[in-house]
Amino acid sequence: MIKQTWGQRWEQRTEWPLAIVALIFLAVYSVQVLGQPHGREAHDLDVASWVAWGMFVVDYLVRLSLAPDRRQWFVRHLFDLLVVALPLMRPLRLLRLVVLVGALQKAIGNVVRGRILLYTISGVILLIYVASLAILDQERGHPGAKIQSFGEAVWWAISTVTTVGYGDQYPITVPGRVIAVLLMVGGISLIGVVTASLASWIVQRVAETDTANQAATASHIEELRAEIQALSQELRHELRARSADQPSSPR
Amino acid sequence: MIKQTWGQRWEQRTEWPLAIVALIFLAVYSVQVLGQPHGREAHDLDVASWVAWGMFVVDYLVRLSLAPDRRQWFVRHLFDLLVVALPLMRPLRLLRLVVLVGALQKAIGNVVRGRILLYTISGVILLIYVASLAILDQERGHPGAKIQSFGEAVWWAISTVTTVGYGDQYPITVPGRVIAVLLMVGGISLIGVVTASLASWIVQRVAETDTANQAATASHIEELRAEIQALSQELRHELRARSADQPSSPR
Amino acid sequence: MIKQTWGQRWEQRTEWPLAIVALIFLAVYSVQVLGQPHGREAHDLDVASWVAWGMFVVDYLVRLSLAPDRRQWFVRHLFDLLVVALPLMRPLRLLRLVVLVGALQKAIGNVVRGRILLYTISGVILLIYVASLAILDQERGHPGAKIQSFGEAVWWAISTVTTVGYGDQYPITVPGRVIAVLLMVGGISLIGVVTASLASWIVQRVAETDTANQAATASHIEELRAEIQALSQELRHELRARSADQPSSPR
Amino acid sequence: MIKQTWGQRWEQRTEWPLAIVALIFLAVYSVQVLGQPHGREAHDLDVASWVAWGMFVVDYLVRLSLAPDRRQWFVRHLFDLLVVALPLMRPLRLLRLVVLVGALQKAIGNVVRGRILLYTISGVILLIYVASLAILDQERGHPGAKIQSFGEAVWWAISTVTTVGYGDQYPITVPGRVIAVLLMVGGISLIGVVTASLASWIVQRVAETDTANQAATASHIEELRAEIQALSQELRHELRARSADQPSSPR
Repeated sequence: MIKQTWGQRWEQRTEWPLAIVALIFLAVYSVQVLGQPHGREAHDLDVASWVAWGMFVVDYLVRLSLAPDRRQWFVRHLFDLLVVALPLMRPLRLLRLVVLVGALQKAIGNVVRGRILLYTISGVILLIYVASLAILDQERGHPGAKIQSFGEAVWWAISTVTTVGYGDQYPITVPGRVIAVLLMVGGISLIGVVTASLASWIVQRVAETDTANQAATASHIEELRAEIQALSQELRHELRARSADQPSSPR
Repeated sequence: MIKQTWGQRWEQRTEWPLAIVALIFLAVYSVQVLGQPHGREAHDLDVASWVAWGMFVVDYLVRLSLAPDRRQWFVRHLFDLLVVALPLMRPLRLLRLVVLVGALQKAIGNVVRGRILLYTISGVILLIYVASLAILDQERGHPGAKIQSFGEAVWWAISTVTTVGYGDQYPITVPGRVIAVLLMVGGISLIGVVTASLASWIVQRVAETDTANQAATASHIEELRAEIQALSQELRHELRARSADQPSSPR
Repeated sequence: MIKQTWGQRWEQRTEWPLAIVALIFLAVYSVQVLGQPHGREAHDLDVASWVAWGMFVVDYLVRLSLAPDRRQWFVRHLFDLLVVALPLMRPLRLLRLVVLVGALQKAIGNVVRGRILLYTISGVILLIYVASLAILDQERGHPGAKIQSFGEAVWWAISTVTTVGYGDQYPITVPGRVIAVLLMVGGISLIGVVTASLASWIVQRVAETDTANQAATASHIEELRAEIQALSQELRHELRARSADQPSSPR
Repeated sequence: MIKQTWGQRWEQRTEWPLAIVALIFLAVYSVQVLGQPHGREAHDLDVASWVAWGMFVVDYLVRLSLAPDRRQWFVRHLFDLLVVALPLMRPLRLLRLVVLVGALQKAIGNVVRGRILLYTISGVILLIYVASLAILDQERGHPGAKIQSFGEAVWWAISTVTTVGYGDQYPITVPGRVIAVLLMVGGISLIGVVTASLASWIVQRVAETDTANQAATASHIEELRAEIQALSQELRHELRARSADQPSSPR
């Protein structure tokens, strides 16, 4: 087995702990937005949120220090720095939860379309949930804002991600509109993944049924090769046998 | 022929009766929502609706009891349990109508894209009809609700399923919004199926016309194999004939 | 050459005249809706419209009478009957204009994707134009209607066909909503055709560039077959030459 | 190497300068719309804008005069004439910026999907930016117009290009609606490109994983051909060796 670098070991060991920190981070954010706590409770949640953030900072610094070429690692992981440093990018820390999906995936097996749909569905559900929390956090309290409850926020997020856009709810603040744009991009990707998976499936089904026009597969070629090899071996054998028959022929 | 289990026999025998029960269920629901019956009539329709539900319960219980491994069957058919047990899932009992589509399908033949479009179109029409009934049932009577007639409900359902979403009509109750979300999901799937079928068709047409770049099909390989086999048989025949010619050669 | 039936000759001969009748029909309808003529002029346009309709009826009856099996022809051309008989289906007579597109097509050549895009673009432009005329005709004058000018009608038609659906304009009458549904169906088909053509093009471009994974084409197989045939001919020739060499060998 | 015509040399030499002129043109337009300058400054920007336009005119005339067949060149470059002559088409001069994308592309390499996505993303961002400037320029100041600031214009452009269309913002002037239609067309193309790229990618991934049904590639056929050639060479060699063995056989 190839020897792992310290950096790879660190990433492997912290994969699950960081996913759990991300989950806690999500739970704390949910309580902060939905419960709107006051006093002592609000203070505790702030602390928990800061601790979770601190862990991501520590993870970033350790990975930077363990890198063989730190300058190169820094340039290649600028995105990680942004996620850690910018408050606006906080929800992207939830990308750590991809590990949980990876665990679910083992149940599904190695089917490409199944995996793609699994990631898409879990991604869209998480996107809708987090966008609903974030938009509620931003819009609530602004005079003239339409999104004032979590139910309305979820309803708005779903009608945006499906690109329906009734217009009964829409954000009016700048951060709210940035969240909306992310949802729209997610919606176009969602339509894209659903359509593309279906297209791939239909192409395959059409090919399977329509045997006359069935695409030649590598296994067809493999069978043909086996046949040619059998022929060539037989010929060689035959020719050699007859060469051996004729040593007595006059030279 | 492989011997069928009792469970398979039950499913085969009850396929059509249950589709008819589903149709009756749909008719009863339509009259309940559109006719808004009172007194005796309302009571009779309620009874019919409960009897139809009872039949689905009986079907579920019989299939459970006939299963070879009941625990496994229970786990694998949790969805069936939900459809039977939850009032919200009632419309999904109409999935039984898929048998009717199966009958239509025989007219179309075994063309994959034709079958997919048939299922999609009949599914979308049923979805729009049932969603219109359900949204009208939920929204009508709520103060401030925009959807107050069946015509408005159908108009809203179609503009939602196509993801146009003008916003002149939209649900304001929670169950109404759940129905809307199902319609949106149906709409994205509809766009996906239409696009994917077209993509598959275009890919095939392009390949057929552009003969130089036509994809190698299994039948091409088959012809090639036939040719190689002819060659190898001829060679064997020739070599054996000549072996037979040379018995007199000194050994 | 195969002898044409009288029906085929009729269809070939009337293809262009009927396309011209369809164009006149479109022009008359445009003037009727946009010019809102009164008195004598309105009467003349009505006459022209009825004459155009009469020609479609004559065409339908002649084709029916020339059919070898009239009952079968009637059943297979029910759609044609509906287009001729129902006032609501009038705009579908414009499908005759497909001949004009066929003429344009000769300039483009026989490229599948080019032809598909040509039909789609010309179909969408015609759809938007006719739907704008029809919606204006239906909505104008209704109290509370939002679409009151041709400009607004075109704006509404385009924002519907692209499934954007702002909701600043929308039909409020039943015939207007039927037209809207046709536009939405056209919009989903438009998205489907655009996406599918792009998908087919990208799949082909990826295959062309990525030579290592280039799909095996029929021409690859053809070259391989030529090689095998050359080998088999050479072998036969060689074997026969040597058979001819050995008649003197002792028997 | 093939000798270039004077026209080709001109196009090659002016590619970058014209891209820079297009950038300056974009900067001037941005300042004009966003800064709404007055007096001397406005005059200077007008002059800069006219100078940039003059350079495009000179480029058009030089290319026309250098063409071997000017009539043919004129007919084939009608689109270029429109871009130069019509004020409405001004933003299309930014198509010159495609050279900048070409430079970026070298970093990505020759991967087809990567290039397509690069052009799409940069095209969409430029489209949104320019459409936001243009719509603001058109709508601002009209009584009843909803789009009154650059922020609102960008928000409207993004919700249009993704076909969400909330309807909180929409253009009310004719030029504004023309810009909206271009954005909608861009949106449908965007959905198309995203979906098509994903479809192509999924089809490839499915084929790679599912080895049993892996599509036969040109390299599979190449290996098979190599095997057949080896067999045929061996046979020829063998047969010739034995022909050489038998000259002493009686003739």
